[in-house]
Amino acid sequence: MSPKITTELLKQLRQVMKSPKYVQEPVQAYIVPSGDAHQSEYIAPCDCRRAFISGFDGSAGTAIVTDQHAAMWTDGRYFLQAAHQMDNNWTLMKMGLKDTPTQEDWLVSVLPEGSKVGVDPFIIPADQWKRMSKVLRSAGHDLVPVKENLIDTIWTDCPQRPCKPLITLDLSYTGVSWKDKIAALRSKMAERKVLWFVVTALDEVAWLFNLRGSDVEYNPVFFAYAVIGMNTIRLFIDGDRMTDPAVREHLQLDSTLEPEFKIQVMPYGSVLSELQAVGAGLSPKDKVWLSDKASFALTEAIPKAYRYLTPYTPICIAKAVKNASETEGMRRAHIKDAVALCELFNWLEKEVPKGTVTEIIAADKAEEFRSQQKDFVELSFATISSTGPNGAIIHYKPVPETNRTLSVNEIYLLDSGAQYKDGTTDVTRTMHFGTPSAYEKECFTYVLKGHIAVSAAIFPNGTKGHLLDSFARSALWDCGLDYLHGTGHGVGSFLNVHEGPCGISYKTFADEPLEAGMIVSDEPGYYEDGSFGIRIENVVLVIPAETKYNFKNRGSLTFEPLTLVPIQTKMIDVNLLTQKERNWVDDYHQKCREVVGAELERQGRHEALQWLIRETEPLLGAQ
Amino acid sequence: MSPKITTELLKQLRQVMKSPKYVQEPVQAYIVPSGDAHQSEYIAPCDCRRAFISGFDGSAGTAIVTDQHAAMWTDGRYFLQAAHQMDNNWTLMKMGLKDTPTQEDWLVSVLPEGSKVGVDPFIIPADQWKRMSKVLRSAGHDLVPVKENLIDTIWTDCPQRPCKPLITLDLSYTGVSWKDKIAALRSKMAERKVLWFVVTALDEVAWLFNLRGSDVEYNPVFFAYAVIGMNTIRLFIDGDRMTDPAVREHLQLDSTLEPEFKIQVMPYGSVLSELQAVGAGLSPKDKVWLSDKASFALTEAIPKAYRYLTPYTPICIAKAVKNASETEGMRRAHIKDAVALCELFNWLEKEVPKGTVTEIIAADKAEEFRSQQKDFVELSFATISSTGPNGAIIHYKPVPETNRTLSVNEIYLLDSGAQYKDGTTDVTRTMHFGTPSAYEKECFTYVLKGHIAVSAAIFPNGTKGHLLDSFARSALWDCGLDYLHGTGHGVGSFLNVHEGPCGISYKTFADEPLEAGMIVSDEPGYYEDGSFGIRIENVVLVIPAETKYNFKNRGSLTFEPLTLVPIQTKMIDVNLLTQKERNWVDDYHQKCREVVGAELERQGRHEALQWLIRETEPLLGAQ
Repeated sequence: MSPKITTELLKQLRQVMKSPKYVQEPVQAYIVPSGDAHQSEYIAPCDCRRAFISGFDGSAGTAIVTDQHAAMWTDGRYFLQAAHQMDNNWTLMKMGLKDTPTQEDWLVSVLPEGSKVGVDPFIIPADQWKRMSKVLRSAGHDLVPVKENLIDTIWTDCPQRPCKPLITLDLSYTGVSWKDKIAALRSKMAERKVLWFVVTALDEVAWLFNLRGSDVEYNPVFFAYAVIGMNTIRLFIDGDRMTDPAVREHLQLDSTLEPEFKIQVMPYGSVLSELQAVGAGLSPKDKVWLSDKASFALTEAIPKAYRYLTPYTPICIAKAVKNASETEGMRRAHIKDAVALCELFNWLEKEVPKGTVTEIIAADKAEEFRSQQKDFVELSFATISSTGPNGAIIHYKPVPETNRTLSVNEIYLLDSGAQYKDGTTDVTRTMHFGTPSAYEKECFTYVLKGHIAVSAAIFPNGTKGHLLDSFARSALWDCGLDYLHGTGHGVGSFLNVHEGPCGISYKTFADEPLEAGMIVSDEPGYYEDGSFGIRIENVVLVIPAETKYNFKNRGSLTFEPLTLVPIQTKMIDVNLLTQKERNWVDDYHQKCREVVGAELERQGRHEALQWLIRETEPLLGAQ
Repeated sequence: MSPKITTELLKQLRQVMKSPKYVQEPVQAYIVPSGDAHQSEYIAPCDCRRAFISGFDGSAGTAIVTDQHAAMWTDGRYFLQAAHQMDNNWTLMKMGLKDTPTQEDWLVSVLPEGSKVGVDPFIIPADQWKRMSKVLRSAGHDLVPVKENLIDTIWTDCPQRPCKPLITLDLSYTGVSWKDKIAALRSKMAERKVLWFVVTALDEVAWLFNLRGSDVEYNPVFFAYAVIGMNTIRLFIDGDRMTDPAVREHLQLDSTLEPEFKIQVMPYGSVLSELQAVGAGLSPKDKVWLSDKASFALTEAIPKAYRYLTPYTPICIAKAVKNASETEGMRRAHIKDAVALCELFNWLEKEVPKGTVTEIIAADKAEEFRSQQKDFVELSFATISSTGPNGAIIHYKPVPETNRTLSVNEIYLLDSGAQYKDGTTDVTRTMHFGTPSAYEKECFTYVLKGHIAVSAAIFPNGTKGHLLDSFARSALWDCGLDYLHGTGHGVGSFLNVHEGPCGISYKTFADEPLEAGMIVSDEPGYYEDGSFGIRIENVVLVIPAETKYNFKNRGSLTFEPLTLVPIQTKMIDVNLLTQKERNWVDDYHQKCREVVGAELERQGRHEALQWLIRETEPLLGAQ
């Protein structure tokens, strides 16, 4: 993987940063955030502006270009990848390390007095604008909105914004109709005394209307906004997608409906002016509810006195707690996903020793097996298929330049998942097709202990996920090992593989408490730069727990693994496990064998079934 | 304990809330925070305004009185105590429970439109003013500073502000001279490009000048402010304390000194006008550094553009990392403290069966034994001496009305500590002088497992204490038990028994990372309302740890117990401990026996030594 040469692009960007055609006054710095106008994590090609200007295409990162410098902030998952993809014009700012300055502090340290810092007001979230603007102002600089995106002005072959057909989801998948979801939202609005709610996140629009799309790879969403009033519904969406009869029927666009459920369809681009009109028509005490992560541009459309901003929207919170139909769908999706991975691992075990399987071939094969499963839609993220040193690049994606051949001498890490119409999967398994070293087994076993410590944790109702993060690290810490990423993220139901408001991370303290029905990942790891990577990830469902004393009826929670794929016992140093941990592994494997075995049987996949049976043998006792 | 009758007082307060003599416009609500003008946790009698108006005298709580309501916010430590001490005029707001509104939200819910909420600007911290004022303003109300404290206007027999003599500490105690501390502070100021630093916390003034006082019970501090410039030192302090020759010599008030170390002594009450003068004389770009917890009044003295506010001051951070002299002093203090407690527990074992020892007598006896130790100054907080159901009142203090007699049938919890000239102690032991029930032992053992899990934890450099909090709860959680307080707090060195910026709590995320030399408490507990309380508390020193792989040279930390008092093995269900935990207990007891035993021997306390030897026998194996 050779870095992108950015000298010429940076020169062009620095020119437009001074051009009166685009900026009222020259800007001395220009911020290129990761997201799109919806603050999405996964973005469409037309929104990959930060990758275009820097070469770094990881899922998280912010570029800042000044007259003299170009700097990139990203987190531990991407330190190696960013270093590989960027040329010497760029300085890598490793977030999470003690000495790394914040973007604001760095700007203050490098900018000449009284500088202007530009940013696209549609791309920057309002909360981030506020924070940066405050620090910059107190240091004598100004954060200024630059209407025209400066990257777009130099991006001559920028692709078009996608506009793909929609999928409608019926009650058997969603459990709740879109009308009931709107009614529930309105009752939350009434509780908080707000008149309007602005839906800006793409997965929130999709969830609210029980629609899915494919405008963004891996995330089944479509470009749209919605503005919900107490008696009106406005959906901002482009293209001829609303002419699809199935969609028209689903949204009852042509039916005689109670007026408060009549959807007005408007062009995507008109959201700002419509919102400005809403803002202009407000009376004192009226409130408009927005996420504090909505774009600065949309937030500014509502005069400050009328804004009601919260870190998590009521849709985000409702969406996180899966109902029975969604939970059952997620279970089905994970069983199908396990079938595909049993096929894959059985195939790899036979093929890897021949020396013909590369990371890309293995990833493609995984997709092939998944695509054979019912209701498969697409992958849920770019498959991380990595062997040996590539495994240490936490969010690695194999490309021809880096593509290694799997062998019996190196650890193989596969982090992959899919979108099925009934659910979203995300699973990581770390395997060795030969004989792992004692050190590799030791590290794997610490990671497994951490995985089990979270998965088997019991905690009182009301506990926030970040309080569980250290459980995943304790065994690693005891030996002086750690990993530079969080332990888990929320997972959508046939929606984004990363979603709020819950998670398990030392970094987030604004997470909402875990509730029964929420779904998160449990994925501790260990990475040895230049050698190997280990990660063990299951998607787990928050369920009520039974405890001896039940927290004085406060109740308690634990996790149930939805992922049912064997954990390679060859990699485990059984001597490092407690009896309780051994039982956990055996019980887990027993369940994999029963549940996934039945489905393999049903699908007539006998060879994969034999593999599953071999891989789910109880652990041998400690020596 | 009967509640304070507050009907008449509330009537008077509501009158002055409308009186043009005290308020420019009537206020519809008046906030009475816990602290004094220095935001101290422990306060002088003249500052106990919240206790005066409500009767609730716990260390944390905020009262708000409106025309119709009187409400008290406090945390889990004080739910029972507050309920006992307040009459029916008051509503208890249990902080930390899910449904409890914040003070701001509650005000918004009860106030009529366009209300004014008053508060003493010297008592409310600037950060809290900002938060409340914002929420109130956005709901159409106003937070207004009321210059004259309204409680003081109705408190006819309010005691005088104390003004006691000072103690000077030489280098053998402090390790660093006050001049070197000022120099280090100025270099931090230069780093951040600030010209002035305002010292508002009493323990920070005391630490900076290597002085101690006794204006506030339990905390060896004195009422003072300091304003440090790059070339000036102003100390605001009242009384004739600066005429004491020892103090004059210590501060070199009469010596020929480099001018930048010449201390100007000024009256305590002149700090606001002096600071306003500093504020008026600033040039653009000049900055004044204050804690964001400094009072709103002092913060406002500096125009907004010139303020540099941080949650933790450089003094707070420097003070937290103890140097070798301080650490050695803390060790000595804890050995002396252990001697006193061995004497006490030996005495209790003999006396309790006679039925003559009450909670107050036991507390007095603990103080008597402590006062026999060298360099004893006073207690470091009000002794929590509680038996049976009183033990469930987390910060209980025995008073004649509640005073129970210790017996062989109930658990006894003693949380106590002292100020010695060489260090501050804080230790909790839970004992049974008869035969504990299986359930009591079970709960005690879970608490012990949590205590050990924190004490023996190994974690990488840079870890914040709050990430360790769940370790203390895991064993309790597994059985459906929990406790409603944090696990640990920073401890001063012959200073406040509670100090920032570090701690171990699920509630605090703004804590600074733990560093070698920091000292915190480790005190999980379990409380069964109406029955018993269990807490096991050691003060522990953060020290470098040895690990197999050492976090790639990032280094790691663990804790060394400074407290060396036996943990009653009679209360332990050994079957619930792992081998590692049993070893921890045995090693700890071995160290208590060696270190404290030698001191008991030296002091000729043979009977207590025999007690120590009995109590530090290795655990019997599990059955």
